[in-house]
Amino acid sequence: MKRKARAARTRLERDTMGELAVPADALYGAQTARALENFPISGLRPHPAFVDATVRVKLAAARVNGRLRLLPARKAKAIAAAAEEVLAGRWRDQFVVDVYQAGAGTSHHMNVNEVLANRACELLGGRRGDAKLVHPNDDVNLGQSTNDVVPTAMRLAALELAPPVVEALQGLADTFQQKAEDWDGIVKSGRTHLNDATPIRLGQEVSGWAAALRAAAARLLNALPEAGALGIGGTAVGTGLNADPRYPALMVEELSKLTGAPLVLAPNPFYAMQSLAPFVAISGALRGSAVELLRLGGDVRLLGSGPNTGLGELRLPPVQPGSSIMPGKVNPSMAEMLAMVSYQVIGLDAAVAAAASGGQLELNVMMPLVAFDLCHALGITAAAVRAFDERCAQGLEADEARCRHYAERTVSLATALAPRIGYAAAAEIVKASVRTGRSIVDLAEEGSGLGAAEARRILDPAKLTRPGRA
Amino acid sequence: MKRKARAARTRLERDTMGELAVPADALYGAQTARALENFPISGLRPHPAFVDATVRVKLAAARVNGRLRLLPARKAKAIAAAAEEVLAGRWRDQFVVDVYQAGAGTSHHMNVNEVLANRACELLGGRRGDAKLVHPNDDVNLGQSTNDVVPTAMRLAALELAPPVVEALQGLADTFQQKAEDWDGIVKSGRTHLNDATPIRLGQEVSGWAAALRAAAARLLNALPEAGALGIGGTAVGTGLNADPRYPALMVEELSKLTGAPLVLAPNPFYAMQSLAPFVAISGALRGSAVELLRLGGDVRLLGSGPNTGLGELRLPPVQPGSSIMPGKVNPSMAEMLAMVSYQVIGLDAAVAAAASGGQLELNVMMPLVAFDLCHALGITAAAVRAFDERCAQGLEADEARCRHYAERTVSLATALAPRIGYAAAAEIVKASVRTGRSIVDLAEEGSGLGAAEARRILDPAKLTRPGRA
Amino acid sequence: MKRKARAARTRLERDTMGELAVPADALYGAQTARALENFPISGLRPHPAFVDATVRVKLAAARVNGRLRLLPARKAKAIAAAAEEVLAGRWRDQFVVDVYQAGAGTSHHMNVNEVLANRACELLGGRRGDAKLVHPNDDVNLGQSTNDVVPTAMRLAALELAPPVVEALQGLADTFQQKAEDWDGIVKSGRTHLNDATPIRLGQEVSGWAAALRAAAARLLNALPEAGALGIGGTAVGTGLNADPRYPALMVEELSKLTGAPLVLAPNPFYAMQSLAPFVAISGALRGSAVELLRLGGDVRLLGSGPNTGLGELRLPPVQPGSSIMPGKVNPSMAEMLAMVSYQVIGLDAAVAAAASGGQLELNVMMPLVAFDLCHALGITAAAVRAFDERCAQGLEADEARCRHYAERTVSLATALAPRIGYAAAAEIVKASVRTGRSIVDLAEEGSGLGAAEARRILDPAKLTRPGRA
Amino acid sequence: MKRKARAARTRLERDTMGELAVPADALYGAQTARALENFPISGLRPHPAFVDATVRVKLAAARVNGRLRLLPARKAKAIAAAAEEVLAGRWRDQFVVDVYQAGAGTSHHMNVNEVLANRACELLGGRRGDAKLVHPNDDVNLGQSTNDVVPTAMRLAALELAPPVVEALQGLADTFQQKAEDWDGIVKSGRTHLNDATPIRLGQEVSGWAAALRAAAARLLNALPEAGALGIGGTAVGTGLNADPRYPALMVEELSKLTGAPLVLAPNPFYAMQSLAPFVAISGALRGSAVELLRLGGDVRLLGSGPNTGLGELRLPPVQPGSSIMPGKVNPSMAEMLAMVSYQVIGLDAAVAAAASGGQLELNVMMPLVAFDLCHALGITAAAVRAFDERCAQGLEADEARCRHYAERTVSLATALAPRIGYAAAAEIVKASVRTGRSIVDLAEEGSGLGAAEARRILDPAKLTRPGRA
Repeated sequence: MKRKARAARTRLERDTMGELAVPADALYGAQTARALENFPISGLRPHPAFVDATVRVKLAAARVNGRLRLLPARKAKAIAAAAEEVLAGRWRDQFVVDVYQAGAGTSHHMNVNEVLANRACELLGGRRGDAKLVHPNDDVNLGQSTNDVVPTAMRLAALELAPPVVEALQGLADTFQQKAEDWDGIVKSGRTHLNDATPIRLGQEVSGWAAALRAAAARLLNALPEAGALGIGGTAVGTGLNADPRYPALMVEELSKLTGAPLVLAPNPFYAMQSLAPFVAISGALRGSAVELLRLGGDVRLLGSGPNTGLGELRLPPVQPGSSIMPGKVNPSMAEMLAMVSYQVIGLDAAVAAAASGGQLELNVMMPLVAFDLCHALGITAAAVRAFDERCAQGLEADEARCRHYAERTVSLATALAPRIGYAAAAEIVKASVRTGRSIVDLAEEGSGLGAAEARRILDPAKLTRPGRA
Repeated sequence: MKRKARAARTRLERDTMGELAVPADALYGAQTARALENFPISGLRPHPAFVDATVRVKLAAARVNGRLRLLPARKAKAIAAAAEEVLAGRWRDQFVVDVYQAGAGTSHHMNVNEVLANRACELLGGRRGDAKLVHPNDDVNLGQSTNDVVPTAMRLAALELAPPVVEALQGLADTFQQKAEDWDGIVKSGRTHLNDATPIRLGQEVSGWAAALRAAAARLLNALPEAGALGIGGTAVGTGLNADPRYPALMVEELSKLTGAPLVLAPNPFYAMQSLAPFVAISGALRGSAVELLRLGGDVRLLGSGPNTGLGELRLPPVQPGSSIMPGKVNPSMAEMLAMVSYQVIGLDAAVAAAASGGQLELNVMMPLVAFDLCHALGITAAAVRAFDERCAQGLEADEARCRHYAERTVSLATALAPRIGYAAAAEIVKASVRTGRSIVDLAEEGSGLGAAEARRILDPAKLTRPGRA
Repeated sequence: MKRKARAARTRLERDTMGELAVPADALYGAQTARALENFPISGLRPHPAFVDATVRVKLAAARVNGRLRLLPARKAKAIAAAAEEVLAGRWRDQFVVDVYQAGAGTSHHMNVNEVLANRACELLGGRRGDAKLVHPNDDVNLGQSTNDVVPTAMRLAALELAPPVVEALQGLADTFQQKAEDWDGIVKSGRTHLNDATPIRLGQEVSGWAAALRAAAARLLNALPEAGALGIGGTAVGTGLNADPRYPALMVEELSKLTGAPLVLAPNPFYAMQSLAPFVAISGALRGSAVELLRLGGDVRLLGSGPNTGLGELRLPPVQPGSSIMPGKVNPSMAEMLAMVSYQVIGLDAAVAAAASGGQLELNVMMPLVAFDLCHALGITAAAVRAFDERCAQGLEADEARCRHYAERTVSLATALAPRIGYAAAAEIVKASVRTGRSIVDLAEEGSGLGAAEARRILDPAKLTRPGRA
Repeated sequence: MKRKARAARTRLERDTMGELAVPADALYGAQTARALENFPISGLRPHPAFVDATVRVKLAAARVNGRLRLLPARKAKAIAAAAEEVLAGRWRDQFVVDVYQAGAGTSHHMNVNEVLANRACELLGGRRGDAKLVHPNDDVNLGQSTNDVVPTAMRLAALELAPPVVEALQGLADTFQQKAEDWDGIVKSGRTHLNDATPIRLGQEVSGWAAALRAAAARLLNALPEAGALGIGGTAVGTGLNADPRYPALMVEELSKLTGAPLVLAPNPFYAMQSLAPFVAISGALRGSAVELLRLGGDVRLLGSGPNTGLGELRLPPVQPGSSIMPGKVNPSMAEMLAMVSYQVIGLDAAVAAAASGGQLELNVMMPLVAFDLCHALGITAAAVRAFDERCAQGLEADEARCRHYAERTVSLATALAPRIGYAAAAEIVKASVRTGRSIVDLAEEGSGLGAAEARRILDPAKLTRPGRA
């Protein structure tokens, strides 16, 4: 039924393999339709940033080829206008090829070529599919190949999606830095190996989180410049066949204008086409942030555990009911979401690296996967960090009394005695404390030989959060 | 503008955290709305099989609780009817919470509870949000907890999605087995280390692929039974608090009817809730198939390389134009898609295993991620293997002449001489062949000391594909 | 200096590439010496179980080839005797080729062939290097190829190393099962999302760990049978060239006797050579246990955290001083070691799977890596689980008072009220408790409308660890 | 027997847990002996670079504490002298604790403290184990904690092992760059998707490899500076308790002198202790090089495949006989070794990242694993790249005739026609060529409408390796 209805409203398009019916209202053409038949895999469509980036390459190429008189001005303008429509938000439902598709992304690339060609035809007063008016290969794709367009589009997409991640990480670092200052006076017990350690101030602990996030942001930022080196103009195998010799530099100029990103011409176009290493580097830096977010988020969950059966040093802002069965339960939902995003980023990064090792000779054809996974990972990281920042980190509150309680009871207070009475004697005091339940201070007053006042002076938790020896 | 328009058409719902406006036409309620605000992460919604599975648990629970008279018959029927509507394909757009969400999937779970409660209200003649008529927690979720419902739903989803993967793998094995029989007479050169090895028949080589796929299918099948052990009825922490003692067994019975899957009650409900290991096992088995698909797909690409600059032993059916710039190019697009799916499965499996290690005490809250990744991985594998089978494997053709050409020229023909003249002497013949370009047969006729006829007899490639010594 | 001294004590050996000096006292020969020059990579030598397994194949082949009269009895006996010496522990320092070596393990394989040939020469009264007496290729390797010997040896090694892992996992399960019984009366608070949940008995919680370990052991056990299918006799490419047709079955028989393992002939010898999937399956099952060990070990660390600043429900036996600076500190060292081993297993498993996807056509040459990583992973898991069992798990003690303390204070006690007063009303009581610090029992006595006695009855933590509704 | 014999030659040492017998000739003491009992896991000992680094921290601390008069000059000198002996190569067999050990590496750290203390005792004329003379905790470890010493030592080890990797990568890049120049005149067929693509010069292709390696080296180099920020002096939890306030800066100064590395004081000592992210970054950069080495090594193997059944564009220098059964076989053994090392690096990197996410609060205790895996990965990469460079890359030879052969036959020559006759018409020529076996040039001469001479001019493969349109 449905099929017949659809069949009724089709037009015939042709590519080099023959004719094919496409939906009458589709802007895409025969090769896209073939890809839809070939790849009914996931239903996932290309990441919007990747569509944007591919269309920007087409827009730039139309302008450059127009300027070089390789494309008649009228065609060039029509193609550019079609591209600008897409970038303004129109025809977004026309980019339909499954994420899991032909190697190198030829199908996605031809989808873009076809949509722009057909829309340009319309803008020129023609009808969709009139390849004589504007041809997807000969005109829209003039001087281009999937093999230089897709790697270039991937670079542009990464350069668009990564800076928001950097900002989100820095924003969360700012939040923690502010907390670190607010909480600089709160003394608590350090914990190493999840066991009592020497005192630390909550502000000190949290300042480490801020530093970790700044470092993670810096690593991601540092991974970006090499993605700005574009192999555009290398065409099929990097040699530049069928592209005008002036074309590569003009493309970089035009794309720089369009994106505002710091782009340069790849010193070696063969490398730019053979290798996906710059994406592995960005993905790896992102994984680095995921590792830190897992760790910090875990600390937030641990310190916020409770209310009555956990550590309870932090109170997390409640964002939603935590349980369908346990009334009043509040969970660290934002931190849990952050952890899931982080695990996903780690998994996607593994896929990216594996795919990047699977290239051969002039090209690594695993690009569609790498493009999607990297865009997805960048996108969810930015969103997750922002959401965690706004709905969890900023609202964190410290339970100062609880912190103080632990600071006074950690058996590692005895560490401060060691420079005076030796490691072994201090250890005996700790063992006595654990055995008897009496406090380190009490036992030190009595049995350290230092005198009660001196022992108490030495064991003041707040002082023990500063460098120096008793 | 859009926001205002939407705001104009809302109704107020409340949960234990207070009131919240939800779209007037939404079947979901306050907790779902909160989750939408909390988790604007990816736009990805729960996998359809996971929605189905969650709804099946609800349907079963309504029936069982009705039978146990814990739920008035009228309510039970209304909830069941609402669930059946969803399973029949209605209201699918109401399951809206992002994949990356609250730990354990409480948000997704409450989304389902709310949709069913509201729809049940309507079916009872009430209006959406009238919790007194049907309450999402007290009625739809009666005797249930996210902590037993979500792990159960994950099991049901896996048991639904895995068998099609098994079938697809077996189907591809059948295809290769048929090819192996068809090609049993085609003699070619074996290649090890990508270098000349002793002769082999194409059918022998390809029979190994069939065996590999059958083994991969068997592993996946073997991983399923333990997923049939359900912890349903354990409620919040496995103890079964707030569920009727008869409820667990009745649920297993009801779910068995609903799904046709071989379900049993988990011998240890605490393990069933603490651990995601059964999903790691399924994911691991799926990864095993991905590893084989990468390898076999790579072999198909390698043997099909060409037409003029590769090995060219196989011809792949062309499915679409291969290049936007190189006319007439035909690529192994289906095999490339299969490789990308395989890399993705390997990456998702890494995420699943990492998330599964991240549980604490009574529960592993990383379930939403594991549910999505496993469902996605199973789904794309089934689809990819089927598509590769239909559009590539079944249409493969052998170039017999090319195979024969290589069989006659591999320098490892000389291996057959070794039992007669020794390894070292045979090696000298190979070295001479490489040095001079003369054939192994020629050199053996002259210089092996075996006599020309005997040498020729020994070196017949076809004979060398069978066990035995010259 | 050192070099000269060594050079002074060498003998000349030759292989098909020419002559080479080897240390006079070395049992290995020219090809091993070449490998030492080629692969100065890590200093790591082959895993002992892999050496044993390779030597067992050689021992079996000598016997079978002797029985088939392909090898003179005297030679066969000498080779067998040499092999038995190695299996008894002699000449172990002669297996010297780096783990990272030639593809397929040809270097390791020739190392074994050379050592056995040279030792057999000696046993026959000759001198090392007298290939005319016993030749490493023509005699020791008769009817064999690296391509069937190494995959067979890997199977034997895995079948030797995996059962101890199974036993260790089951042993730890027994320990936890005993603890579960001992602690069945200890009521504590469940924790989900690291937050207060409904009560549970410590014995229930720990019974889940036992079940997890039994399941992990079962998965590993289930992965083993397919490794018992040997491709021995396939020789170079699976066709069996240069091996007697009776040889494969006799080899399986002989190896069965030598190892006691349940071995069969591989139904498809091409698959047995092309694919490393059986090792991926074993590695994947082992990864499954690592995931559980990470989780359980983490729970032990968390419940044992303290003594004064953690949860302190468990007391871990102290095994060594925990800190170089903090006197008296006791850390969960055994659980930490277990975690590190588990992370390593996960990493090695990733390497195994990646390497297994890197095969081409007749052979996957990445076998030396897979052999080492799998043997290493199996070995450290068995040792780590045993050590953790003996030095941590068996000595665990519960702090019953602490557990009871939490059981009485978890705010999720209120869950038991919900079936009587509804989820929303129960949530109000929890919120009041968190706000005021008053206990759930107190508030329920006053404000639930159930009456004080009934409320108290309903909220008895011990009762709440059993199925049923208030 | 063995045990008794050993027991006979022991001395008693004590730590805070009591007395323990240690071998009389051991320089280590009670805590090391306890660790040997606790951790009989793998037999793998700490990486030599990690021992060196730990000892350098001890040497620096002895000097600084001596200068600060916290340690009597005599003791300080004795400890320093003991450390210098180790750095000069003595007592290396005394660092015996298994890689898989107590969290944070306390056992390894105490092993070092004990060896240096005992050796210092001897140097002062005392006997081993005389803690009154030199105490492992109070003297050797003065002002130090595992928690600042081990992360510092890991940084020093990484900074020592990474530069040789950078050099090795650059060295291999130089080799390929030289080849690229030598081979600049060799025209071949490009291959994308493993299928015929437009012509390229072998030199161009290989120049891309050189660029890839330079980029990989640069990434690793860029990851190093942050590892130069030391948290030394933070002691137990980062606060600096028990260390002199002047100590951190003096330590950085002293360690800078000792190592020549560009060290600074960590701006945030809490971050330096909490996080292993700098190691994840180095490991990630190393993984990036592994990904490229897999890819390039794969290309070398593919182009070198043959001699008679592969592509045969490159000839690899033979380094050893390739097969135990196939005489005269030569395999790409060095490239295969490189691939195995690369897979291992990828696996170890996964372990490093997973372990780095497993930290809690003040410390990540998974340091021993990260230290070993990172040191191992750096070490094997440097060695593998050097060996591959020397024994494979430098000796590569091109088969110019074979390259030319392919250049003339690739069907993608037709790409050059497209700007003149259109993509669709050019595709028809390719299809005719594949169908009939006739060459592109022949068909273009006849059927392109361009005229024979013009067609031939356009289709000259050498010209097609330069930018521009026909």
